[in-house]
Amino acid sequence: MQHSYRQLADHLMHEIKAGNYQVGERLPSVRAYAGAHEVSASTVIRCYRYLEGLGMVTARSKSGMYVADWKAQNLSRKDQRQANESKPPAVEYDKLMSHQHRMMQLYALTAQPLHLGLHLASAAPQWYPCEALAKIGQRLLRHDAQAIGVYPTGTGLPVLKSALIHHLASFGVDLQAQDLLITNGSTEALSVALRAVAQAGDAVIVESPVYFGLLQMIENLGLKALEVPCVAGAGISLEALEYALEHHAGVKAIVAMPNFQNPLGCAMSEKNKRRLLKLVEHYDIALIEDDVFGDLSHEAERPQPVKAWDRHGHVIYCGSCSKSMAPAFRLGWIAGGRYHARIAALKLSHSLVTPLFEQAVLAEFLHSGALPSHLRKLRERLVANIPLVLAAVRRYFPAGTLVISPAGGWWLWLELPEKVDSLALLRLAVSEGIAFTPGVMFSNSAKYAHFMRLNIGRPWDRELEQGIKILGQLVAQLMYSLAGL
Amino acid sequence: MQHSYRQLADHLMHEIKAGNYQVGERLPSVRAYAGAHEVSASTVIRCYRYLEGLGMVTARSKSGMYVADWKAQNLSRKDQRQANESKPPAVEYDKLMSHQHRMMQLYALTAQPLHLGLHLASAAPQWYPCEALAKIGQRLLRHDAQAIGVYPTGTGLPVLKSALIHHLASFGVDLQAQDLLITNGSTEALSVALRAVAQAGDAVIVESPVYFGLLQMIENLGLKALEVPCVAGAGISLEALEYALEHHAGVKAIVAMPNFQNPLGCAMSEKNKRRLLKLVEHYDIALIEDDVFGDLSHEAERPQPVKAWDRHGHVIYCGSCSKSMAPAFRLGWIAGGRYHARIAALKLSHSLVTPLFEQAVLAEFLHSGALPSHLRKLRERLVANIPLVLAAVRRYFPAGTLVISPAGGWWLWLELPEKVDSLALLRLAVSEGIAFTPGVMFSNSAKYAHFMRLNIGRPWDRELEQGIKILGQLVAQLMYSLAGL
Repeated sequence: MQHSYRQLADHLMHEIKAGNYQVGERLPSVRAYAGAHEVSASTVIRCYRYLEGLGMVTARSKSGMYVADWKAQNLSRKDQRQANESKPPAVEYDKLMSHQHRMMQLYALTAQPLHLGLHLASAAPQWYPCEALAKIGQRLLRHDAQAIGVYPTGTGLPVLKSALIHHLASFGVDLQAQDLLITNGSTEALSVALRAVAQAGDAVIVESPVYFGLLQMIENLGLKALEVPCVAGAGISLEALEYALEHHAGVKAIVAMPNFQNPLGCAMSEKNKRRLLKLVEHYDIALIEDDVFGDLSHEAERPQPVKAWDRHGHVIYCGSCSKSMAPAFRLGWIAGGRYHARIAALKLSHSLVTPLFEQAVLAEFLHSGALPSHLRKLRERLVANIPLVLAAVRRYFPAGTLVISPAGGWWLWLELPEKVDSLALLRLAVSEGIAFTPGVMFSNSAKYAHFMRLNIGRPWDRELEQGIKILGQLVAQLMYSLAGL
Repeated sequence: MQHSYRQLADHLMHEIKAGNYQVGERLPSVRAYAGAHEVSASTVIRCYRYLEGLGMVTARSKSGMYVADWKAQNLSRKDQRQANESKPPAVEYDKLMSHQHRMMQLYALTAQPLHLGLHLASAAPQWYPCEALAKIGQRLLRHDAQAIGVYPTGTGLPVLKSALIHHLASFGVDLQAQDLLITNGSTEALSVALRAVAQAGDAVIVESPVYFGLLQMIENLGLKALEVPCVAGAGISLEALEYALEHHAGVKAIVAMPNFQNPLGCAMSEKNKRRLLKLVEHYDIALIEDDVFGDLSHEAERPQPVKAWDRHGHVIYCGSCSKSMAPAFRLGWIAGGRYHARIAALKLSHSLVTPLFEQAVLAEFLHSGALPSHLRKLRERLVANIPLVLAAVRRYFPAGTLVISPAGGWWLWLELPEKVDSLALLRLAVSEGIAFTPGVMFSNSAKYAHFMRLNIGRPWDRELEQGIKILGQLVAQLMYSLAGL
């Protein structure tokens, strides 16, 4: 099924790309174009509108349709996202320091002309089982189109829940279907978890450094984040945590990533996980465990989450397919322990249900048994990258740069020499077409201003090496200018 | 691509349905079944797991796999949702009166063995353009599988935004891409709108009777709902609204459905819409306009929402494809006027982004120009139903039953003789396989305890007529028992 306006649009797009119509040139009137192609005027109007949506053409009021500056835009679906908002929004670098604007500015960053987006939240698209998932999706749509007409209800597709229960059981988390709720990504899972255990004015403990989206979420819920430092390679400092719990009465929860913390990439030892659970039980507060990177261990063994030892329901477990299986699906899951009923009510009243199509596709993928081999391949790719990237950083970055090598996931957390402001570095880097996430985003204080987070979940190639080289040179350049040289 | 375990599962399902294995019968051991079909043991395990997820078979620990009571379950994808939770959850009728449990209990209702679900939130699946949407989806997956591997960012797919902007402009709402945000259904749109304008402890005005999901949402956000009565056929009483605004200082917003109120189905006149806007401007509060039924007018003309006259950004406009285009997609949109930046930040920090696949499918459907003829057909079907349903209600329900005939949408709001408790009626009806929504859900008070809402968005047939007849008889039966006869 190809609509006639789409055929016409494909034809016109081809002509524009071939240079038959130049950027800025006026296109034929609707009437003329319709006549020339023996189609109706409304087909031409739809064709023009469609290309307008793609950013290929642009309407000027009362004067007709013109060829847009389409070359500035890459027209893959990924880039269509920004195509309609005629110009990419400018990055306001100073706003990267404010919670309220961090995410928006990070998105603005993505809209810039970049060739190396080391700030992105997932691995390279070709590292995911896209073809297998797409084929399952096509089959489902072919065989059960009517499902589109059914208003979904419930807490998640049972076939997905049963697949997830088998997966979770493989690393020690034993759940029943009624313990599990499917959410719009782990972000929604974290949001309803926080709302279930804390009210405006309450405090929650987070790791430091910490994923900026969590800080923004906490702020937007009217909560206060207490940042407890991590020990590099070991996760949250249990001594600092105990101190914080002793000295703050209103703490309702700890939010932590015991497996492959974002941005540090470290995992807590099993002993420390058990100590963390004991603390949580002792203070009778919730542990909101974000395990989205748990499947991405660099070792063959998948580490257990704290939830595996949770006997009294203190742990709210949050997972997702966004990092390890299908970034675009926006599917997460939550097992809320003793807080589950409240969590389910909040999810329901916030967004009712999660779309079923992606759930059905993921369920079939998991039931097919394809996950372990996919994860093995993903792990091998990540593991192969680490020494190459580390060697390049050592080679190209100035002396005094410290690297935290991850034990899982794809984040590389770099500490630059202390006077180097990574926000200033980002400005320079974006003008070279390279983006990363500046350290200032990982705390409400400025203490990580000279840190940076790189996504190294992409094939090692000349482009990545060149990017690291340019970043290292820019750091050196900033150091020289700081030294007044 | 059909996995071998799926072929085996299809085969075994066929055998079970043919009666070769009876309900409760033990299935062959994994080893025996693998041998008999010349497949690996792991294929049989996957096959059994898959059928377990579908509720066809059930594992008994240490004793093997047994045929489940699959006949009690309809195995369409719709019903798979409950299949995994071995028994449908019992409806706790009294909980339908409490905000916190209403939605859950309504879902529990859906899980009962029903043949006439007049409580459902959408029209009959065959009334939606499922085939056209499924074909677009298949094509997108075929041509752009890699999109599954891309982590989405941004406020909505630009091609969808441009299509929606054209659609909204057709009834007087003029927006730019940056004014519009795509959400996980209109429920999320309403939730972030409320969070943007009000804080825990604030009051918001709602219509009475009102959609129960809104009452639950307001309660969960710590807000207070002031219920302002509607005038049948005209929408919210502006006199009562003015009185409420004069007497309550802390009101931050009005949430209203000026086009086809749920459950009344009435539209406000243009004059009253303008008066409502004036009031909102005078008190400098937000109007959260829920226009999800706006496209479902029973007249050819689509009425304008209040947003069409909003010059100062007081109106937060919420729409969705769930009622009029594709119930399963869970796509909504919001144009937040002067509150838009705050709304966008809250959406981002609650659930980041909305899945792009459904957005791309809907965008292409809208760009193809197929919407107007789909809506015309849907309208014709709804309009054809009304006199038939009204005649049946008049024929089968006891005298003293009042019917509010809708001007749009598919709700029929019935007022029963005053002593008839529609919750008691629901208990009886469910035992006959019929469900509807009891009036008590539409207010925090009990004033609609003798009302009921019916979904009549389904083909007129003997089943629907019989259902209305049975409901009428049950009402009569309740009246007799009340009269002590």
